[in-house]
Amino acid sequence: MPALSEVISALDALWPPERAEGWDAVGTVCGDPDAPVRTVLFAVDPVQEIADEAVRLGADLLVTHHPLYLRGTTTVAASTFKGRVVHTLIRNGVGLHVAHTNADTADPGVSDALAATLELRVLGPLVADPADEAGRRGLGRVCEPPHPMTLAEFAAHAAERLPATAQGVRVAGDPDRPLTRIVVSGGSGDSLFDHVRAAGADAFLTADLRHHPASEATERSPLALLDAAHWATEWPWCTQAAAQLDQISDRHGWGLRTHVSRTVTDPWTAHVASTTDTPAAPRTPAPGPPSGPDSPGAPR
Amino acid sequence: MPALSEVISALDALWPPERAEGWDAVGTVCGDPDAPVRTVLFAVDPVQEIADEAVRLGADLLVTHHPLYLRGTTTVAASTFKGRVVHTLIRNGVGLHVAHTNADTADPGVSDALAATLELRVLGPLVADPADEAGRRGLGRVCEPPHPMTLAEFAAHAAERLPATAQGVRVAGDPDRPLTRIVVSGGSGDSLFDHVRAAGADAFLTADLRHHPASEATERSPLALLDAAHWATEWPWCTQAAAQLDQISDRHGWGLRTHVSRTVTDPWTAHVASTTDTPAAPRTPAPGPPSGPDSPGAPR
Amino acid sequence: MPALSEVISALDALWPPERAEGWDAVGTVCGDPDAPVRTVLFAVDPVQEIADEAVRLGADLLVTHHPLYLRGTTTVAASTFKGRVVHTLIRNGVGLHVAHTNADTADPGVSDALAATLELRVLGPLVADPADEAGRRGLGRVCEPPHPMTLAEFAAHAAERLPATAQGVRVAGDPDRPLTRIVVSGGSGDSLFDHVRAAGADAFLTADLRHHPASEATERSPLALLDAAHWATEWPWCTQAAAQLDQISDRHGWGLRTHVSRTVTDPWTAHVASTTDTPAAPRTPAPGPPSGPDSPGAPR
Amino acid sequence: MPALSEVISALDALWPPERAEGWDAVGTVCGDPDAPVRTVLFAVDPVQEIADEAVRLGADLLVTHHPLYLRGTTTVAASTFKGRVVHTLIRNGVGLHVAHTNADTADPGVSDALAATLELRVLGPLVADPADEAGRRGLGRVCEPPHPMTLAEFAAHAAERLPATAQGVRVAGDPDRPLTRIVVSGGSGDSLFDHVRAAGADAFLTADLRHHPASEATERSPLALLDAAHWATEWPWCTQAAAQLDQISDRHGWGLRTHVSRTVTDPWTAHVASTTDTPAAPRTPAPGPPSGPDSPGAPR
Amino acid sequence: MPALSEVISALDALWPPERAEGWDAVGTVCGDPDAPVRTVLFAVDPVQEIADEAVRLGADLLVTHHPLYLRGTTTVAASTFKGRVVHTLIRNGVGLHVAHTNADTADPGVSDALAATLELRVLGPLVADPADEAGRRGLGRVCEPPHPMTLAEFAAHAAERLPATAQGVRVAGDPDRPLTRIVVSGGSGDSLFDHVRAAGADAFLTADLRHHPASEATERSPLALLDAAHWATEWPWCTQAAAQLDQISDRHGWGLRTHVSRTVTDPWTAHVASTTDTPAAPRTPAPGPPSGPDSPGAPR
Amino acid sequence: MPALSEVISALDALWPPERAEGWDAVGTVCGDPDAPVRTVLFAVDPVQEIADEAVRLGADLLVTHHPLYLRGTTTVAASTFKGRVVHTLIRNGVGLHVAHTNADTADPGVSDALAATLELRVLGPLVADPADEAGRRGLGRVCEPPHPMTLAEFAAHAAERLPATAQGVRVAGDPDRPLTRIVVSGGSGDSLFDHVRAAGADAFLTADLRHHPASEATERSPLALLDAAHWATEWPWCTQAAAQLDQISDRHGWGLRTHVSRTVTDPWTAHVASTTDTPAAPRTPAPGPPSGPDSPGAPR
Repeated sequence: MPALSEVISALDALWPPERAEGWDAVGTVCGDPDAPVRTVLFAVDPVQEIADEAVRLGADLLVTHHPLYLRGTTTVAASTFKGRVVHTLIRNGVGLHVAHTNADTADPGVSDALAATLELRVLGPLVADPADEAGRRGLGRVCEPPHPMTLAEFAAHAAERLPATAQGVRVAGDPDRPLTRIVVSGGSGDSLFDHVRAAGADAFLTADLRHHPASEATERSPLALLDAAHWATEWPWCTQAAAQLDQISDRHGWGLRTHVSRTVTDPWTAHVASTTDTPAAPRTPAPGPPSGPDSPGAPR
Repeated sequence: MPALSEVISALDALWPPERAEGWDAVGTVCGDPDAPVRTVLFAVDPVQEIADEAVRLGADLLVTHHPLYLRGTTTVAASTFKGRVVHTLIRNGVGLHVAHTNADTADPGVSDALAATLELRVLGPLVADPADEAGRRGLGRVCEPPHPMTLAEFAAHAAERLPATAQGVRVAGDPDRPLTRIVVSGGSGDSLFDHVRAAGADAFLTADLRHHPASEATERSPLALLDAAHWATEWPWCTQAAAQLDQISDRHGWGLRTHVSRTVTDPWTAHVASTTDTPAAPRTPAPGPPSGPDSPGAPR
Repeated sequence: MPALSEVISALDALWPPERAEGWDAVGTVCGDPDAPVRTVLFAVDPVQEIADEAVRLGADLLVTHHPLYLRGTTTVAASTFKGRVVHTLIRNGVGLHVAHTNADTADPGVSDALAATLELRVLGPLVADPADEAGRRGLGRVCEPPHPMTLAEFAAHAAERLPATAQGVRVAGDPDRPLTRIVVSGGSGDSLFDHVRAAGADAFLTADLRHHPASEATERSPLALLDAAHWATEWPWCTQAAAQLDQISDRHGWGLRTHVSRTVTDPWTAHVASTTDTPAAPRTPAPGPPSGPDSPGAPR
Repeated sequence: MPALSEVISALDALWPPERAEGWDAVGTVCGDPDAPVRTVLFAVDPVQEIADEAVRLGADLLVTHHPLYLRGTTTVAASTFKGRVVHTLIRNGVGLHVAHTNADTADPGVSDALAATLELRVLGPLVADPADEAGRRGLGRVCEPPHPMTLAEFAAHAAERLPATAQGVRVAGDPDRPLTRIVVSGGSGDSLFDHVRAAGADAFLTADLRHHPASEATERSPLALLDAAHWATEWPWCTQAAAQLDQISDRHGWGLRTHVSRTVTDPWTAHVASTTDTPAAPRTPAPGPPSGPDSPGAPR
Repeated sequence: MPALSEVISALDALWPPERAEGWDAVGTVCGDPDAPVRTVLFAVDPVQEIADEAVRLGADLLVTHHPLYLRGTTTVAASTFKGRVVHTLIRNGVGLHVAHTNADTADPGVSDALAATLELRVLGPLVADPADEAGRRGLGRVCEPPHPMTLAEFAAHAAERLPATAQGVRVAGDPDRPLTRIVVSGGSGDSLFDHVRAAGADAFLTADLRHHPASEATERSPLALLDAAHWATEWPWCTQAAAQLDQISDRHGWGLRTHVSRTVTDPWTAHVASTTDTPAAPRTPAPGPPSGPDSPGAPR
Repeated sequence: MPALSEVISALDALWPPERAEGWDAVGTVCGDPDAPVRTVLFAVDPVQEIADEAVRLGADLLVTHHPLYLRGTTTVAASTFKGRVVHTLIRNGVGLHVAHTNADTADPGVSDALAATLELRVLGPLVADPADEAGRRGLGRVCEPPHPMTLAEFAAHAAERLPATAQGVRVAGDPDRPLTRIVVSGGSGDSLFDHVRAAGADAFLTADLRHHPASEATERSPLALLDAAHWATEWPWCTQAAAQLDQISDRHGWGLRTHVSRTVTDPWTAHVASTTDTPAAPRTPAPGPPSGPDSPGAPR
């Protein structure tokens, strides 16, 4: 059985920590470098439910995409919810290792797994890493659909291919718009609009889009938007990463057992559709605008 | 007919600009102070569709909640989408006036209108304005439901009472949890979690919640979350504001005609639910992971 | 007739916006990109008097050297003096375009026009643009006088050649000093003294020099200074720029009519010379220093 | 004879150093606290010419309004022009003491001396020092003229009463405007326009006004401006300060001999009026505007 | 047996965390709030040697003066020396609690324990906490010696009373100077010189004094300095703190067993005196200065 | 005799001022560039005692390693201790020139002189200056001992070779550790630990090490530390620098007389060893730990 330090060296070769963003916090969060490793669990979020799952599974190492401590902490006391995770892991001999923005921009990276799940053909990165001469690393992926699709068709396709969540997929744009170039980016994407427009995309699938950036993006150009659960856009990476470690394990004869958590850690657990067709407490109807585009509650 | 400057003085008395946050940009964006005002349109977003609606309506003044320029601009050229709004308004003699964070914290304010729409009883502000001796002004509102409700019941109630949007309402938490104290805050709420916990709330209804703040909030405490469309949480204020101006008009004999736009300016125009049944379902009781679904690297 | 967007493309080729300083605000301030352009007015300052002149002239485009909004604004309401300019221009279909520090450093630029007006021979830029291999672009110009001149002679020459203003020309230095190298820089020049000394100049003609920089410059070295009205040092550029656009119009067969405003927009409208020969309220004369250098009111 | 430290204590009582602005550098620049003081010279600028005058006069102490080092220095080497002043003073046993913004805002202060020279009646400070319960300290002075005057009359009066300089007085505004409230502020005044407008002034006399602040001030409101030599607006304080020290000397029986330097240290040594009546190199006359307001070179 | 959370509440009452400096990191670093506590170890530094001592002792809680993580960390991996401390403590069920600047300024605080060890009478704090009406809390202590002492006598006394360290005590000043007012401050003291001078002290005993602050302090005034090992000046607090917790334990009938570590964690383990009496490689002796004060190697 | 400006040009060639750190303040502090120079004194600190020594010696120039004003000053009044130095020097015609971080990193530099004094063989700089192609300039020096030594032997050797000071040498680490690679750095060294570890050093000799950096360095790795008086680590440079100037003087036939001050300006004037073998006021002995490693006062 390899030592934790050996497994971590292998993971660092896949996702070199120095390729993470300056504000990010990747690498090993806890664990003894000399401890032997047999079982590894992959998950998106290092939350208590996942830590408990790792303990139940008898895992020696938990690899997550999100950092436990993105900003530095001066305490890991178990009276805090993150410290409770640390105590659970250390007491049960489970190491925690994080690959975040260094996995986002890797080749293959988080958005490659997302594109594969959506059966899109990857043309290249959205924001290329200037240090990669091969031109494959970087944030987001510019893609082509497998065959011609309208926005409505692609939205239905995404809702079917992505792991199921309560939130589903939110869509903005003309449902009949034909899509020939689609950008995908796992996780929060609302800082990428300038790049998406520069890439000449018809549609952008990502997560965590807020009102103001989304509204400004749709006012500025006819770009279509698809907003899925943050967790759902990053979960495909876990499977991809586990397969990468399996290959390494085979090559070294380590005999590792890798697992991918199927626990949905997206915070949203239910969704309720609007059940009125008029805005609440309607006031005197506006005279000018006819029924069509301005009728109460109708989507624009 | 009153001059624009007189109407603006009345609006500034309702929502004094000096009560806006330091980073905000409220007040009159365009318009001639001496122009006469007969017709006023209220809306959430100063987008082109709303500017066109104001022109069609023959409005002299458009009052919106969101600023056109939150950060300063050095150009209003019509080659930009915001400049096109400015040209449309100035060429058609329509003034634009904004009440944003000064309306959020007013008495009554944006969250009072939201609470009324949801038929909640307001107990007081979430973040009290220390300058208000009466203790009524401030951000967000701490409320009581009209009668005992579970989270599932309140979510259904919100989906029925709020103006209809494509996004509907996202929910996080135990559906059977009884709610006795509910905090509401119109617009983006993910910076308010510390205050919400301090208020002893069972549930928090707001908009634009992102993965990390929502996930951390639910890990930290059993607080239930409801996330509606940003537009839907602020639209009720338009009706409330129009009624306030109607009263002022009556008092001065101004004969103003006020209108509330029913155009939905939320960017999301459609929603598609997840249509796969794996892995989403098994959130809580993760069994001892059997081999099948957790086998290494298997595509779902 | 060309569209506004076509004329602006031509102006941007003369003075590329990306060559402006980072703190500057150049480019199109208002106007519709599709509007046809027949008449163009050039001026230094985008003030109300110039906007009114453009309207009287029937201009479709006003090109000024100074920005209307150097710092970003969140309002163009006509209750502000700048917003009144915007309303005047938009209502009358006049576009506004600004070329400021990108025109200062162009080839030819603002200081070339100033040097030509003063009949100086340009040797090169004072602060060279490192991106210009030809070595012609940059801030200020190092020049030679057409023939040997003393400071007194050059000051009289400048007062005769520059457009007339109430302020005239202020002079510091030995009137009999012979000048062989003269630096000129249109507009405020008091941040350029280090460069002027490094250029080996005998004299520096610019505008807006204040007490402390001017005093320190004359204490540090015998450099002569000439301070003209800010407007007067930049107005020659308007004629030069109009001629440049005339050539472009001829080349494209656009048939543009260009005009240069002769309105003096320097704020100073009168000048009164000191009319006492002793300092007010003289006190006991200082004993030591004899009458000569210390006599009241005598220039040092 | 008092020691330098005793005289400085007296000066510090007149102009407490802790009342200077945070960015200012006041107090004793050089000198031995135990050295006896008989002769004191007052001047505006601590330049070499003034240091030499102090030596010729046999002064033991030089008191100036402007700091020698406003920003900190790490060298006083005589190879720098300021270091040469330090060497001249220390070698000849002359101390240097500075009262700058603490003298500006004193009661009486720099602008009181300026108002007295201009025979204006002081109503109070322009920017009141909130720590002064008597309401007399602060920056600038709001004044009344001794009798009704137009702007043209007041400009002529100022040119006669202020110490003579080459620059004279620049004026902006309607010459026939009657003045009933005049603000004066010795030294650079272009950061004070908001206060001047708030004071309801008809005219503002100060120094070092630059194009953009002056232009914006006159565009914004009909305020008249008078710009005198920086030195000329502060020199009257020297006489006032010397008289204050004379009184203290008499009270203590110190027998000090005080002198006020009459050396004009304003950098400008000559002025030349514009001697053309048309802008240089006139181009095709603008067609629209008639001769009157737009004729070449005419003051607006 | 009390729970860890109960013991921490008692410690927080002694040294309220909110009284720590803004840059400090105090409070509980690790441990489970529900764990029972029987044995508590007090020490200055949370280093591995102390963690091992706590494990050997069977301690449930380690209380240290210095933070483990003064700046935030994003990892507690055992491959780091601090993470190894965390793993040691968590695996062995030992909590870690820090009282740093909140203990420095407490009443009694770190400098009270230091003064008691040195048998000095405390007059009051050096830098008083303005929130303490009793005037007893604050940084450092102003003291009187028990009887008249010279600097040489006090240095010998300190070397005898403080816990033994390899570094001993460094002394600066006239050995015969009589001391009537002595300031002590546990830990690094070189930012406190202004306060020490303002307190009218004859001598200042602290730690970690560096060349430049110490040199400037002795150039500025005849203040005597004593520099002991940082650890030695703070160790007396451990005994004092243990006694405080003993009292609380007795009052609540908790039956706690408290221990004070005697492990010297000062980094210096040996000291060698200079063994030459001339500077190395002496060059031509300076002619002017006579033998006495300038003789090679003699203390000034 | 050369002028001061000529001598300074020679010194600037040895230690170019532009090679100093950005925060440093090197070069000429006072002196007249035209003054003739015959006698030059070298010293570490520009304190009053050294200024007086220069005057007694009849020196025309004092060259020191430490700046007089590291941060800018706005006063050199003799009421301050640094201003008194300036007055002493200017009145007696002594110039002051500083070579600080530009001398640290020179070839040869401060640490070369330190290594030579310790009879170490220099392998290269610790932090290489990237602009030096020869690879010799930079901060600190990586060295080899002349023959195999243990830490105890090297400490005794350093105490014998360095100029004598009251502080002697503090040592941390295993006395029997054999040393094959030793880093030395004159002056404060506690920011260099990362570089020292990267250089693979066994020991680090420097000055001004404080508790926290030293403690963390010894916890992190078994690196041995030696801490000498700051002055003692930099004094050897004075001799080296004087010899460099002697050579230049010979080459130009200047006939300079150079001297090295032997005044010890280290602030510490005495040292007292700990004279107890138990910590003061011992409390109940800790039960668990046996006598050996935890016995009171024993070095770890």
